[in-house]
Amino acid sequence: MIIILKDNVDQRQLDALKKWVESQNVCVHQSQGTQSTILGLVGDTVHIDIDMIKQLEIVEDVRRIQEPFKSANRKFHPLDTVIDVRNRKIGDGNLCIIAGPCSIESEEQIMTVAASVKKSGAAMLRGGAFKPRTSPYSFQGMRDEGIKLLLQAGKANDLPVVTEIMDISQLDLFAEVDVIQVGARNMQNFELLKQLGHSKQPILLKRGLCATYQELLMSAEYIMANGNDNVILCERGVRTFETYTRNTLDIAMIPAMKELSHLPVIIDPSHAAGMARFVAPLSRAAVAAGTDGLIIEVHNDPARARCDGPQSLTMEAFASLMTELDSLHKLLHK
Amino acid sequence: MIIILKDNVDQRQLDALKKWVESQNVCVHQSQGTQSTILGLVGDTVHIDIDMIKQLEIVEDVRRIQEPFKSANRKFHPLDTVIDVRNRKIGDGNLCIIAGPCSIESEEQIMTVAASVKKSGAAMLRGGAFKPRTSPYSFQGMRDEGIKLLLQAGKANDLPVVTEIMDISQLDLFAEVDVIQVGARNMQNFELLKQLGHSKQPILLKRGLCATYQELLMSAEYIMANGNDNVILCERGVRTFETYTRNTLDIAMIPAMKELSHLPVIIDPSHAAGMARFVAPLSRAAVAAGTDGLIIEVHNDPARARCDGPQSLTMEAFASLMTELDSLHKLLHK
Amino acid sequence: MIIILKDNVDQRQLDALKKWVESQNVCVHQSQGTQSTILGLVGDTVHIDIDMIKQLEIVEDVRRIQEPFKSANRKFHPLDTVIDVRNRKIGDGNLCIIAGPCSIESEEQIMTVAASVKKSGAAMLRGGAFKPRTSPYSFQGMRDEGIKLLLQAGKANDLPVVTEIMDISQLDLFAEVDVIQVGARNMQNFELLKQLGHSKQPILLKRGLCATYQELLMSAEYIMANGNDNVILCERGVRTFETYTRNTLDIAMIPAMKELSHLPVIIDPSHAAGMARFVAPLSRAAVAAGTDGLIIEVHNDPARARCDGPQSLTMEAFASLMTELDSLHKLLHK
Amino acid sequence: MIIILKDNVDQRQLDALKKWVESQNVCVHQSQGTQSTILGLVGDTVHIDIDMIKQLEIVEDVRRIQEPFKSANRKFHPLDTVIDVRNRKIGDGNLCIIAGPCSIESEEQIMTVAASVKKSGAAMLRGGAFKPRTSPYSFQGMRDEGIKLLLQAGKANDLPVVTEIMDISQLDLFAEVDVIQVGARNMQNFELLKQLGHSKQPILLKRGLCATYQELLMSAEYIMANGNDNVILCERGVRTFETYTRNTLDIAMIPAMKELSHLPVIIDPSHAAGMARFVAPLSRAAVAAGTDGLIIEVHNDPARARCDGPQSLTMEAFASLMTELDSLHKLLHK
Repeated sequence: MIIILKDNVDQRQLDALKKWVESQNVCVHQSQGTQSTILGLVGDTVHIDIDMIKQLEIVEDVRRIQEPFKSANRKFHPLDTVIDVRNRKIGDGNLCIIAGPCSIESEEQIMTVAASVKKSGAAMLRGGAFKPRTSPYSFQGMRDEGIKLLLQAGKANDLPVVTEIMDISQLDLFAEVDVIQVGARNMQNFELLKQLGHSKQPILLKRGLCATYQELLMSAEYIMANGNDNVILCERGVRTFETYTRNTLDIAMIPAMKELSHLPVIIDPSHAAGMARFVAPLSRAAVAAGTDGLIIEVHNDPARARCDGPQSLTMEAFASLMTELDSLHKLLHK
Repeated sequence: MIIILKDNVDQRQLDALKKWVESQNVCVHQSQGTQSTILGLVGDTVHIDIDMIKQLEIVEDVRRIQEPFKSANRKFHPLDTVIDVRNRKIGDGNLCIIAGPCSIESEEQIMTVAASVKKSGAAMLRGGAFKPRTSPYSFQGMRDEGIKLLLQAGKANDLPVVTEIMDISQLDLFAEVDVIQVGARNMQNFELLKQLGHSKQPILLKRGLCATYQELLMSAEYIMANGNDNVILCERGVRTFETYTRNTLDIAMIPAMKELSHLPVIIDPSHAAGMARFVAPLSRAAVAAGTDGLIIEVHNDPARARCDGPQSLTMEAFASLMTELDSLHKLLHK
Repeated sequence: MIIILKDNVDQRQLDALKKWVESQNVCVHQSQGTQSTILGLVGDTVHIDIDMIKQLEIVEDVRRIQEPFKSANRKFHPLDTVIDVRNRKIGDGNLCIIAGPCSIESEEQIMTVAASVKKSGAAMLRGGAFKPRTSPYSFQGMRDEGIKLLLQAGKANDLPVVTEIMDISQLDLFAEVDVIQVGARNMQNFELLKQLGHSKQPILLKRGLCATYQELLMSAEYIMANGNDNVILCERGVRTFETYTRNTLDIAMIPAMKELSHLPVIIDPSHAAGMARFVAPLSRAAVAAGTDGLIIEVHNDPARARCDGPQSLTMEAFASLMTELDSLHKLLHK
Repeated sequence: MIIILKDNVDQRQLDALKKWVESQNVCVHQSQGTQSTILGLVGDTVHIDIDMIKQLEIVEDVRRIQEPFKSANRKFHPLDTVIDVRNRKIGDGNLCIIAGPCSIESEEQIMTVAASVKKSGAAMLRGGAFKPRTSPYSFQGMRDEGIKLLLQAGKANDLPVVTEIMDISQLDLFAEVDVIQVGARNMQNFELLKQLGHSKQPILLKRGLCATYQELLMSAEYIMANGNDNVILCERGVRTFETYTRNTLDIAMIPAMKELSHLPVIIDPSHAAGMARFVAPLSRAAVAAGTDGLIIEVHNDPARARCDGPQSLTMEAFASLMTELDSLHKLLHK
């Protein structure tokens, strides 16, 4: 951490600041210039509140040098984290494909889609039971009943299941769920994150619509600091001024997360594009950029889907995409 | 709602679509052109799922004409909503000032600030007990104890209190709170919004960091559709590429909300600026643009605040700002 | 400037870097820590290329402490710059209103509008002759002929004129123009800025659609470094995800520019809003936040304007707004 | 185009509007509803000014159905445009790699880099002579001399050359340049675009920092409407709130442009990333998403580059990337 001081600071205030910093087990180095004085803080500054120092009368500005996250930081954990979900691995160089409908709509629907994506090579089954819809007048998901149907379809096809939690009060219903998803709109629902930190279930943490890399990793830190190291990061497009696509897929998040963190990172091309016809090129791009996996919306009848139909692949399109991605992944990892 | 059809559509599919729309009690008018065919849907289209129609094979694009919100819509409720909080009115042309520390830190602190802002003319007292901090290593608020101290300070100074809820499970603790705040990061925590819809307590709903006006009003709609009409909208700055200020205050939200909705709208200059020295100009701008109120962070010792010190006004600066805003408001409303 | 070094750097490379920095007349202070080493560069670092240093093998990161602009920087020029345009002052606490049509359309139109805004109290006349339109099929302005008509209308009403230049080749036509406007889309047309630096005419420099404060000031610096100190900064709304308004007016730019620079700053509420009915509240907000002036689109017949009709005030609405702004400005400056 | 009328409109005004629209050779279809009346305009509406209609008293809103660009529109030109630059093809399924230094710095430098990228398989040579730098104090390019050295290096290695123009006045110097680049900051320098429309040289048009797809295509339209159909579109990252990368690469622009337009589209991973170490993953992603080419910064000594060193590949890294991209492209096109 670097503290830039104002001109002509009061020596007693400066001494007090330096003494306080040292009391936090952090060393202070002072650079005296003609125009400005700089304090370099060297040590573990994660617990030092940058805002508090900024407010001091003698301080012009404060900048962080070290990242404010620790558990998720590659610097303190150089090896890739590999997450094991009933023997499916995420983060070991493998390409883990999670597929299924946006929302669970009926037993027939989820059983049909599950069997199909299994056959096409998906490693896990997704399906929403609790749906965060912008409008209170839109379908809100089958809730408890949806979770049951998803678990049933997962068992019948030997597929671990991934589904989204929207509130702490739903946690009991998620006991048998293999991977608990935290949606983009809940990425900074800190009370929920803390609770999930007390679980051991893997958490698929989606990046918020306008969250920075650092904020995403700080949210992962909330889970990890509470005891759960099984966090999968997920990019699903950010909000920009461009409205042709639903969101703007930030493909550079893949190498960025590999650099900043040891956690696996996957891509959701369906929500990024908002259009089924863009899912294939975005999926190929993600694999080429080194993603650990993809989460893709697949529906047995997209035109009648109760949610996100326009961005769902048909089961046939998904099967064909899987073949393509497989040869691409092989080429890049041979 | 307007449906733009593809060229040379199948007549049977078109007839099926028209029949289905009419079954939803919505009229269809067809405009046949040489290059394109357009269906105009006239009637109450709030319940029609735009995504589902987009996905149909014969459809090129769908556009909404009517806003997807009803309860919050000025078209269906032309008169301003005035919210009464123990005889303090918000939305009647009055300027309602809510002031207090970012977080409640001690009995002495909240009692001192409460007495001071009361004397300066604040209508309500704010103070955070549950704090949504980006870092799990930052101060998380005094929680239950904080709520108690806030209520005590409110009573001692005859000030209604405003404080933020972060999770449904905290609801019992808010029984005596006068106005429940939903923070920017929880603006689309739909399960929380639904629960607050079952309360009768006024809700101060903050706009999310990258939420559109329509999304903010859809979140208000979640509360209103569940039975609680007492919603106060709050702009606190949005996220842009500019980092000199903490957020970018969208001052045009004031006239925009007055046009789109009948709900009162207030401004949070402290979070928008992130710097105490910008709070006065932004507050004046908000009053000049017609805000119904302001929520301002005030601290008895900003340099020692445990949270958001840099953006907190001293009690003296707040007193002086109040005098200024009062004469400004009087000039504009005479 | 702060240079953060990688762990275990090569001592010879470090010595070479320090020697090179010192050869640029900048002092180096080294802070040695257990985890990281920091070099503090103290002196005039404007000419040091941050990118070049970033690329060095031993360097982890580089951060600027001092702003990279000098001529526009308040630190080196504490007093407000006051620009004199034929005795109209901008920057001295006065409120300078520039008004007129988006584009000059005919002699009758510009003469009518000029006489009307003069009567209402405008200090200068605006009008576009060269129009930067998104579509090549839209009206591109009256060009040479437009400039003549504008000058004629200015003379007839004793109003200095402001009009936009789009290319260096047009410069000769601007010889008698009082204030030359550089539009948002040309804010980083550096060849044009350099040429304008060789003029003595005041330049009204509009902020680009997604330009940071620093980039705007660097563009002002291009003009000033070439010899022309008469730069007026103008905020006209930035691009965000919100599309209800044409742009998002960044009202905080007013206090920010007052802090960073000594140059006057004005607001264009017409382009920010894109809707005539929002021009009054945004203008009031700008005056309340301390703007040095406003540039407002006024048309004698907005419904028949060839450009930007929806955001133009009628002459009557402008007259009424002027009265309002006058009393507001008086209140704030008494 | 769809015109949504206000309630209870004046019949004479409505008739006048309909008559005027029909006089523009556009048909009008009226949909009368209980709550609203809609006019559907069918025909060639490119020349109808949406703003002018919006301003009419009887009009609530206007929405465009057809895109406002014609020459660049795939609907009117279904086949891919293939641009031939001295027998190098762009747009025919081939992968066209343009490589070279950010700026031309010396004869030795450009000759060395040209020979090396030629050997590695680059199809064209890039190099900046006129440099748009944010700071007037940064290196501004070798200008005339730079163009000469670039042409010399191109000839010596049988490589067509690509270089950026910054102002119309430089056009004579570009007579022998094979592809003229328009930079992101000049994407809406409409006077420059018009002039380039009178040339026959291919234009590499970079997307602006916050330009929408439609705005990029409207800028292409400026060139094409003036007679030059040889436009290559280029995505180089857009500006978002994320600052870890220099810009955010919008990878979805590739399928989007293939859908909206027939023009070839290439990717600039160097400016998007701002870091050499991200160039390889972003390049692979672009190839996997179907780009027609890449423009990559390569330097013989990045640590001493006078511009953009941090994002330049070494010649060795470029050679190795070329091998990788070649096998990737082959797999995807077999």
